Amino acid sequence: MKPFMSDDFLLSTPTAKALFEACRNEPIFDWHCHLSPREIWENETPADLAELWLGGDHYKWRAMRSCGVEERLITGDAPAIEKFRAWAACMPKLIGNPLYHWTHLELRRYFGITEPLSAKTADAIFFEANRQIREGGFTPRELIEKSNVRYVCTTDDPADSLVYHEKIRDEGKFPVKVLPAFRPDKALAVESPAFSEWLQKLSAAVGYEIGHYKVFKAALLDRVDYFAAHGCRATDHALNPVPYRRVPEGELERIFSAVLRGETVSAEDAEAVKTDLLRTLAREYAARGWVMELHIGPIRNNNSKAFAEIGPDAGFDSIDDNPVAANLSRLLDSMASEDALPKTVLFCLNPKDNYVLGSMLGNFQTNEAYGKLQFGSGWWFNDNISGMRAQMDALANLGALATFVGMVTDSRSFLSYPRHEYFRRILCEYIGSLVENGEYPADMETLSSIVRDISFGNAETYFGLR
Amino acid sequence: MKPFMSDDFLLSTPTAKALFEACRNEPIFDWHCHLSPREIWENETPADLAELWLGGDHYKWRAMRSCGVEERLITGDAPAIEKFRAWAACMPKLIGNPLYHWTHLELRRYFGITEPLSAKTADAIFFEANRQIREGGFTPRELIEKSNVRYVCTTDDPADSLVYHEKIRDEGKFPVKVLPAFRPDKALAVESPAFSEWLQKLSAAVGYEIGHYKVFKAALLDRVDYFAAHGCRATDHALNPVPYRRVPEGELERIFSAVLRGETVSAEDAEAVKTDLLRTLAREYAARGWVMELHIGPIRNNNSKAFAEIGPDAGFDSIDDNPVAANLSRLLDSMASEDALPKTVLFCLNPKDNYVLGSMLGNFQTNEAYGKLQFGSGWWFNDNISGMRAQMDALANLGALATFVGMVTDSRSFLSYPRHEYFRRILCEYIGSLVENGEYPADMETLSSIVRDISFGNAETYFGLR
Amino acid sequence: MKPFMSDDFLLSTPTAKALFEACRNEPIFDWHCHLSPREIWENETPADLAELWLGGDHYKWRAMRSCGVEERLITGDAPAIEKFRAWAACMPKLIGNPLYHWTHLELRRYFGITEPLSAKTADAIFFEANRQIREGGFTPRELIEKSNVRYVCTTDDPADSLVYHEKIRDEGKFPVKVLPAFRPDKALAVESPAFSEWLQKLSAAVGYEIGHYKVFKAALLDRVDYFAAHGCRATDHALNPVPYRRVPEGELERIFSAVLRGETVSAEDAEAVKTDLLRTLAREYAARGWVMELHIGPIRNNNSKAFAEIGPDAGFDSIDDNPVAANLSRLLDSMASEDALPKTVLFCLNPKDNYVLGSMLGNFQTNEAYGKLQFGSGWWFNDNISGMRAQMDALANLGALATFVGMVTDSRSFLSYPRHEYFRRILCEYIGSLVENGEYPADMETLSSIVRDISFGNAETYFGLR
Repeated sequence: MKPFMSDDFLLSTPTAKALFEACRNEPIFDWHCHLSPREIWENETPADLAELWLGGDHYKWRAMRSCGVEERLITGDAPAIEKFRAWAACMPKLIGNPLYHWTHLELRRYFGITEPLSAKTADAIFFEANRQIREGGFTPRELIEKSNVRYVCTTDDPADSLVYHEKIRDEGKFPVKVLPAFRPDKALAVESPAFSEWLQKLSAAVGYEIGHYKVFKAALLDRVDYFAAHGCRATDHALNPVPYRRVPEGELERIFSAVLRGETVSAEDAEAVKTDLLRTLAREYAARGWVMELHIGPIRNNNSKAFAEIGPDAGFDSIDDNPVAANLSRLLDSMASEDALPKTVLFCLNPKDNYVLGSMLGNFQTNEAYGKLQFGSGWWFNDNISGMRAQMDALANLGALATFVGMVTDSRSFLSYPRHEYFRRILCEYIGSLVENGEYPADMETLSSIVRDISFGNAETYFGLR
Repeated sequence: MKPFMSDDFLLSTPTAKALFEACRNEPIFDWHCHLSPREIWENETPADLAELWLGGDHYKWRAMRSCGVEERLITGDAPAIEKFRAWAACMPKLIGNPLYHWTHLELRRYFGITEPLSAKTADAIFFEANRQIREGGFTPRELIEKSNVRYVCTTDDPADSLVYHEKIRDEGKFPVKVLPAFRPDKALAVESPAFSEWLQKLSAAVGYEIGHYKVFKAALLDRVDYFAAHGCRATDHALNPVPYRRVPEGELERIFSAVLRGETVSAEDAEAVKTDLLRTLAREYAARGWVMELHIGPIRNNNSKAFAEIGPDAGFDSIDDNPVAANLSRLLDSMASEDALPKTVLFCLNPKDNYVLGSMLGNFQTNEAYGKLQFGSGWWFNDNISGMRAQMDALANLGALATFVGMVTDSRSFLSYPRHEYFRRILCEYIGSLVENGEYPADMETLSSIVRDISFGNAETYFGLR
Repeated sequence: MKPFMSDDFLLSTPTAKALFEACRNEPIFDWHCHLSPREIWENETPADLAELWLGGDHYKWRAMRSCGVEERLITGDAPAIEKFRAWAACMPKLIGNPLYHWTHLELRRYFGITEPLSAKTADAIFFEANRQIREGGFTPRELIEKSNVRYVCTTDDPADSLVYHEKIRDEGKFPVKVLPAFRPDKALAVESPAFSEWLQKLSAAVGYEIGHYKVFKAALLDRVDYFAAHGCRATDHALNPVPYRRVPEGELERIFSAVLRGETVSAEDAEAVKTDLLRTLAREYAARGWVMELHIGPIRNNNSKAFAEIGPDAGFDSIDDNPVAANLSRLLDSMASEDALPKTVLFCLNPKDNYVLGSMLGNFQTNEAYGKLQFGSGWWFNDNISGMRAQMDALANLGALATFVGMVTDSRSFLSYPRHEYFRRILCEYIGSLVENGEYPADMETLSSIVRDISFGNAETYFGLR
């Protein structure tokens, strides 16, 4: 039996261990996360481990609800120690859950605490961690730096001023590059009641009225330029379902006018606008060498009561199961056929789509980039050993694993970087098993370079930062 | 090499073996099965092993057809010995099939026969088993008792008199609790040609005419009360597809009137009625603390010729592949938003839905119960090593495995209880592998309590019997 | 660690090795491939290894694009050595990809070359292989014979003259049976702009005008007879989506008239024609004891620009994700209910359908054949270790693995026969693991006969050639 979370954690063969040694010290390129640039700028010491862990992490909130914890101890007004105890008491029940591993990796890597967290150890661990936090070294920038991160791409609204990115850059003290990523989900959500309010923000950001669809698109492109001037290399779209409906330009103007008048927009009309905006933006992304990330498949805010009481991104989202192949094919093809398909990373939330996406890539690969189309690493509900392994297996079987741009934290927490270590262990175990099983030669030079590239180098090249 | 089906069957590590020792003697709570309460009451000695195994088990019938056996030897009028020989001859071809394991577990646990069944051994095994059956100990009650069963929930129509449940209870001799479960599939099937005949039965059961939709609903609630008075704790709905269509009350009356007039009901109208009935019943289940089981995804009676000749539940059903997420989300949300969502177990027949259901749970978990929403164990076509393992892996990764209410036989046969042993072995092997692999501390006290709870205790608490 | 691709490749247990010894020398029945009968007849020595490997293999083209190779080196006019070098340079990046194994198995089995292919070894391997090719033994027939092939079923259009099949047969020198397979995809594609041109070919083949739907069907049946006279035993249909729409005969005549007039055919009308043609043809297949292969699920020609420049079957197809269960059930049932369901092999391209198809089989099994309905081996994007293993696991759990008709190359290349070895290794490893794990008795006589039958014997019986 292997001890719990030893140095060989998840590595069962000599080859896997050797490969992990080869890549464990590679820097981190966290090209998709939800870290707050403001918090990075302000760089404050957190109050305690409860704030760090439970302040905004809806993965943990959800797990606590699954264990029957009352909401007061989750998002309610209970004292920090009570919330922490409630979380600690859930831990042993989360056997087989990635939160179990993330939690203990974070305790080990940031606090040197190796004791398993449970109701019994809760108070001692809370006390010790908080003592360390007060001693220093736990501000956002300190955590990022000590995690060996070289680049961070945050996730930003087109109307965002990017003021904190500017401040960090202008100050010139933080050695880690903090770049914005362009995420225009609110721009595409023309059917949403919140659209008109958002449009006012966009209008304020560009400094002119937006009374026509053409002007709307021009404003978005102005923001693309603005993001470009701030070093943006990545964009992100959440799609569910994947839209594809082409209509004449005049029709789009008509729909947009109706939106401006506050009329209800049909699903078909909204799909037509989304399709046009995606195509328009993709052309600009491609022209700038940006990477387009498509996150496909969540069904959000399933619990209306909880949504009303707690709001979005609070742990009430899950996996949808629409077909994706036909529209995704048409959407990408409509870009490719006009030489306007950017480098693209496809993420799926439903593992039934692993093989659909893994094989879709191959339809549009060209020599414009090394691995121009990418299959994103196991995402959200798939960000676990089984899910990451399934993604790697699909990518290896259907594409070229060596071109993979690897892991992202996709996290709101400054303690999430050990997920990269977790990923690298799983990757090395997977590749190691192929070698040990006689499926690939034990050419350690080639293999080491493959795992190092997937850990960091491929992403640096792909995002145009090398 | 491990010998065939040794004491360490399916247990490959010391931890797995120790965990199985910790839970193997836990009692059984068979909270979903298709046993006949009448047969339990009548408690007759079966004629022979052919009757026990081949009298009503459509899993075996189907497997025999897959091996090219003629129907005469399956559901036809061939003599028992011929049918048994035909089944025995299929055995070796079913390598990798759960029927292979179930059959040999049953031979071992009930008859002490360890020789593999095949054409060669058929007659000897048939003779020996029948000898033992004649010697006694093989009536339904004897089999249930010697299997260490503490509770059985049968599956019962709302119009059922529950007379055999009453007789068993009133006699007071059988130490095992035999409880009815409320399964109103025929009530929801308003589009079925058989509905009006069934409605007569319901009318007879409640003792009044059912001429309006409101009365229909009142009658169902009367039966809910009737079942409650008979100790019911569980209900069951088969859904394919998952309905969700809300219409005004008046519209429901209009549809029901059309049903009463014998008119054809559109799919949309039927969906509206099903939605309303599910919501209405769920409210009552919730109020009584009952568990609502939703079985999602079979496509039934695919072979019309066989249906005409042999009837339903004869091995001609398979796995459907409709999307389920959107409607299931809306249906559960419509209940939750009115505080009328009962404890719910979601079962899927299509393994593509494992992650959809496994993540859907989390949207509606609260502290009203420990694991209020449950992901049901690998069901029917997934009731095998791969399927159960996939369900456990999904549940562990997406929820809290320790809260799991575990296994059900879902069987028509009194010999099916070793499926619980099979499940426990797979569970202990799964958890054991996590521990041996360093993914969870080797805390045997916590681990033993987890496997014992999943084997029995969680279900006893969940169904309100402790 | 096992050496790369040793004699025990993919075999990790003594039982697996013993089983592979039992079946490795079984002949090959390649009952579905895309070999050219003309090339078999002409039997020319290939120019070099680049022609053999890269001349028509869109799997490799696609993999090269995934590695960022420019099109000139793939389907362009670059010299053979440059293309070969480009392919060799991709190799190490294809870790975990079946192409890595196929390539090296082919180098070993046909050329005795054991050195891994890479940029470094490219020229030496190209030189050595070409030297051997010039020395002889690499014509199509020589490759087929030395691969221990006993039967080949090609894939042929109904309008095909089958002249090369005739020549091979009449010459009487080639000991391998080269049989045509009837693939009327173009006949069912009434909505295609290419239909009318194809109809002219059919008309020329039968020697009469085709002005009515009834005549069209008669012409197809004439071709069925023609194929029968040429030894055909297999037919093949590509379905995506699976059609099922029944309309009156007169309606079909009306649609066909519209087709003849060059009018656009709606998707519904096309579906109705496809349904009727499938039913009509199936009846004839059944009457002749032919096997109907249904290949379900590709989405083709996703890249319109590449299609315009390079054409079909060039590596721009991928996996679709339509639901399949309902229509497939109805289609097969409509045949079975008229005793017109032929022996049928269901292949799915989307692995989400493994359990749907694996369970659909059981609905229609009868004693008309041993394994009348078959679940086809891991196909195309699933033709890899994970995919084949998943298919075997699904088949074993849902049906009777021992009845399986096994592997096909589905290839355009005369070097693809080691895929059968690959399959047999995976099969023996799978079955071996069941035995070593105590899930099946170590009855080597039964087990050997099972793997031998799956390797060859079952197919020979199933296709009526024994």
